[in-house]
Amino acid sequence: MDEMGYVILQLFILMSMALILGRVFERFKMPGLVGEIIVGIIFINVIIAYPGVGDYIHFNVVSFDADETHFLNVMGELGVIFLLFTVGLETRFSDLLKVGRPALYIAVLGLVIPLVCGLLYGIGLGYSHSVSLLIGTAMFAMSTAITIEVLRDLDAVNTIEGKIIIGAAVIDDILCLSMLAIISGIVDPDTNNATIIANTVTVIVFLVVAFSYISRIKKIAEKRKKIMMAERKNFYRLTGELMVGDDATLPKARTYNANKATLLAMIVCLGMATISSTIGLAGIIGSFLAGMMFAEFKDTYPCETNFKILTAFLLPFFFIYVGMKVRLNDVSASILTLLIGLIIVAVITKYVGGYIGARLGKVPKDSSVVIGMSMIPRGEVGVIVATIGLNLGIFTNEMFTAVILMAIGTSIIAPSLITWAYHRMERMRAQTEQNSAL
Amino acid sequence: MDEMGYVILQLFILMSMALILGRVFERFKMPGLVGEIIVGIIFINVIIAYPGVGDYIHFNVVSFDADETHFLNVMGELGVIFLLFTVGLETRFSDLLKVGRPALYIAVLGLVIPLVCGLLYGIGLGYSHSVSLLIGTAMFAMSTAITIEVLRDLDAVNTIEGKIIIGAAVIDDILCLSMLAIISGIVDPDTNNATIIANTVTVIVFLVVAFSYISRIKKIAEKRKKIMMAERKNFYRLTGELMVGDDATLPKARTYNANKATLLAMIVCLGMATISSTIGLAGIIGSFLAGMMFAEFKDTYPCETNFKILTAFLLPFFFIYVGMKVRLNDVSASILTLLIGLIIVAVITKYVGGYIGARLGKVPKDSSVVIGMSMIPRGEVGVIVATIGLNLGIFTNEMFTAVILMAIGTSIIAPSLITWAYHRMERMRAQTEQNSAL
Repeated sequence: MDEMGYVILQLFILMSMALILGRVFERFKMPGLVGEIIVGIIFINVIIAYPGVGDYIHFNVVSFDADETHFLNVMGELGVIFLLFTVGLETRFSDLLKVGRPALYIAVLGLVIPLVCGLLYGIGLGYSHSVSLLIGTAMFAMSTAITIEVLRDLDAVNTIEGKIIIGAAVIDDILCLSMLAIISGIVDPDTNNATIIANTVTVIVFLVVAFSYISRIKKIAEKRKKIMMAERKNFYRLTGELMVGDDATLPKARTYNANKATLLAMIVCLGMATISSTIGLAGIIGSFLAGMMFAEFKDTYPCETNFKILTAFLLPFFFIYVGMKVRLNDVSASILTLLIGLIIVAVITKYVGGYIGARLGKVPKDSSVVIGMSMIPRGEVGVIVATIGLNLGIFTNEMFTAVILMAIGTSIIAPSLITWAYHRMERMRAQTEQNSAL
Repeated sequence: MDEMGYVILQLFILMSMALILGRVFERFKMPGLVGEIIVGIIFINVIIAYPGVGDYIHFNVVSFDADETHFLNVMGELGVIFLLFTVGLETRFSDLLKVGRPALYIAVLGLVIPLVCGLLYGIGLGYSHSVSLLIGTAMFAMSTAITIEVLRDLDAVNTIEGKIIIGAAVIDDILCLSMLAIISGIVDPDTNNATIIANTVTVIVFLVVAFSYISRIKKIAEKRKKIMMAERKNFYRLTGELMVGDDATLPKARTYNANKATLLAMIVCLGMATISSTIGLAGIIGSFLAGMMFAEFKDTYPCETNFKILTAFLLPFFFIYVGMKVRLNDVSASILTLLIGLIIVAVITKYVGGYIGARLGKVPKDSSVVIGMSMIPRGEVGVIVATIGLNLGIFTNEMFTAVILMAIGTSIIAPSLITWAYHRMERMRAQTEQNSAL
C-alpha cells in the first residue's frame, strides 16, 4: 500500500469512529461535535500508548505534531472558515446593528472578567505575573466554531438569542485577538510598541473599510434593481405594448451555475480570510465578513447549499484535530488539580461575564442564561496562548498541558450546558404562554 | 501570519488562477481540467524560477516533493475517489455486463498494443530491454479520472459510448495494475514469484467477491421490497379494510438525513478504497465498486448530491497536483525530441488499440473513434512507472522527466480530441437522421 493508501485508511478509521460515537452521543442527546473531539482524543492516545498501531497505519505522532499543514488540520480549518462564511451569508448588517449593544456588553465583560479573574487566580496560586497574565489571556477568548455548531444543531441561529450570540462572538474574536497581540507584546521583551500600535491601526482600518463596504453594498444592490426596472419600462415603451406575464424576452437576472458560483464565493472567502490573517486577526473574521459581503449576491451566485455541504464534510476534522491535541499520558495528579481549578474559573467567569453583559443589554433572564452558556467554549486562542507561553519559557510543560486541556475541557462541557439552557428557555416560554392563555 | 494563513493564501492563489484560466479555456471550448493542469504547471514553475515568490507564500518545493501526504495531494486524491464512487452509483451491473464484450476487447488491445509498441520503440532507439519494457508499461494505463471528467462535461456518461468507456476504463485499470505488479517484479530482482502469484490471486478473489456481492444485492433488494409488500397486505387484512391512499399509518421506507447518509456512504467508499489499495489495486477501483454496491441503497441513504458537490470542490486539486509534477527547467532539447516521440507513440497506440477493440466488439465506426480518443489520457500509472524506473536506477533523470511529461502531455491533448470526436459523432448522426427523413 502506498502512502496515499494509508491516508485513506486513517480517514476511514476516523470517520467510522465518528459515525459510531455520533450515534452514541445522539442517544444521550449530546451534540455530535463532542463525539468528534473524543474521536480525536482516543485516536491519538491509542497511538501514543500502542505505537505499533501508529506504525501499522503510517501515522507518526512526532511528524504530525511538527506539521502545521497536516491535511487533517487544513481540512478542519477550511471547515471553520466555510462555516463562518455561511453564517455571514445569513447575517444581515441591520440585524447585527440591532443586537450591537448587548453583543458589545457581552463581549467586553466576557473578556474582562475571565482575564482579571484568571490573573488573580494565578497570582493567588503563587505564580509570577507573566504566568498569571497568560492564564487570564488563555481564558478570555471563546471558540466561535463550537458555539455556532451547537446553535445550528438546535436550529437556533436565526433566533434573537442566536443573533446576539453571533454578534458577541464576532466582537469577542476581534477584541480578544487584538488584546492577544498586545499582551504577547507585553510578555515578549522582543516586541516594540510601534509594531503593536501599527497593528492595532491596521485592524481598525480593515474593520472600518469592510463594514462600510457591507453597509453600502445593500444600497448599491437596490440601485441596480431600480436601473433594471427602468430598462424594462423602456423596453415596454419601445415595443409599444404591455406584455404582461411574458417576461421571457426581457433581459433577465442571470443565475450562475452553482459550482461556478461556489468557486467565486470561495475566492472571496479565502481572499478575505488571507487579509484578516495577515493583519493578525484570525482567518474566520475575514470569512465571516466575506459572507456578509457576498450575501447580496447569493441570488445571482447560488453558493449557499454547496457551502453547507462542504462544511458538513470538512468541519468534523476540525473537532477531531482539536481532540488530537490532548495527550493523556502528560496528565499527572498535580496537573489534574490545576486543570480542575482552571476549568471551574474558566466556566464561571465567562458565564458570569456573558450573563451580566446580556442583562446590562436588557436581555431577558432566560435568554441571558443561554447567552452566558454559549460563551463558555474555548478553543484555538487557548492553544495559541499555551504555545506562546511554552515557547517564551514562561509556561512549564505542566502548565502548557493544563491550559490546553482547560480549553478543550470547556469545549466538551459547554455544548451540553448550552443545549440544556436552550431547552429550559423554550420550556419556560411554553409554560408562560400556557399560563397567559388560561 | 501563521502557517495556516499561508495555506489559505496558497488556496486563494490556486483557485483564482483556476477561475481565470477556466474562463479562458471555456471561451476556446476546451475542458476546464486542462486549465487546472496548467494552473499547476504555472504555479510550481514560477516558484522554481523565482524562489522569492515561494518564500513569500511559504511554499517550499523541496518539502512539497518529499511530502506524499501534502494536503493538495490528499484533497485531489479524495476528489478522484469520490468521483469514481459517484460513477459507480450511476453504473448498473446489468449495463456493465451488456458492454462487457467490447469493453474487454478495448481494454486488452489498449494494453497490449501500447505495451508492445512502446517496448519496440525503446529497443529501436537503442535502449536496454529493461528500459524499453518500462517505457511500454508507462504507456499502457489510461487515466480514468480525466476521461470521466470530460465525459461528464459532455453530459455523455449515460450514453452507450459512455458506458462502454467506463467499462473499458475499469477493466483497463484492473488489468494494467495487475500487469504493473508483474512487470515491476520482472524488472526488480528483489521480488520473488510467490509474492506476485499471491498478489494476483488476492486481486482475483477480491474482484470475484465484490462483483458477486453486487450482482446479488439487487436480488436482495427486490426480496426486501416483497417482504414489505407482504407486511402491508397483512396489515390491511388485520385492520379488515382497504385504506387506499392512506399510507400514513403503514410502515414506511425510512429516508435518512443527507449528511448522515453521506457519512455512511463515505465510510463504505473509503473502506473499499483501503482494501483495494492494500491488495495493490488503486483506491479508485475500490471506490467504484463501493459506488455500485451502494447504488441500491441510494434511495434510503440519499448521498448522491453531496458526493457530487464534494467532488466538484476536491477534484480540481487533483488536476492542479498533476500539473505540479511538471518541471519546465528540466526540459532540454534532447528530452524534447524523446518526449515528442513518446507522446506520438502513446497517442497513436492507445487510440488504435481502443478503436480496433471497439470495432471487434461490433461498435459503429463513429462511436469507435470517440472510444479510441477516450483511452488516450495517461496519468498516475505513468508517474508511478517513471518513479519505479528512477528508484531502481533503470531510468536516467532525462528519461524520468520525459516519461512523466509524456503522461501529462497526453492528458492535456486528449480532452480536446475526445470533445472533438464526440461532437463530430453527434453531427454525423444528426445528418444521417436528416438524410433518412428526406
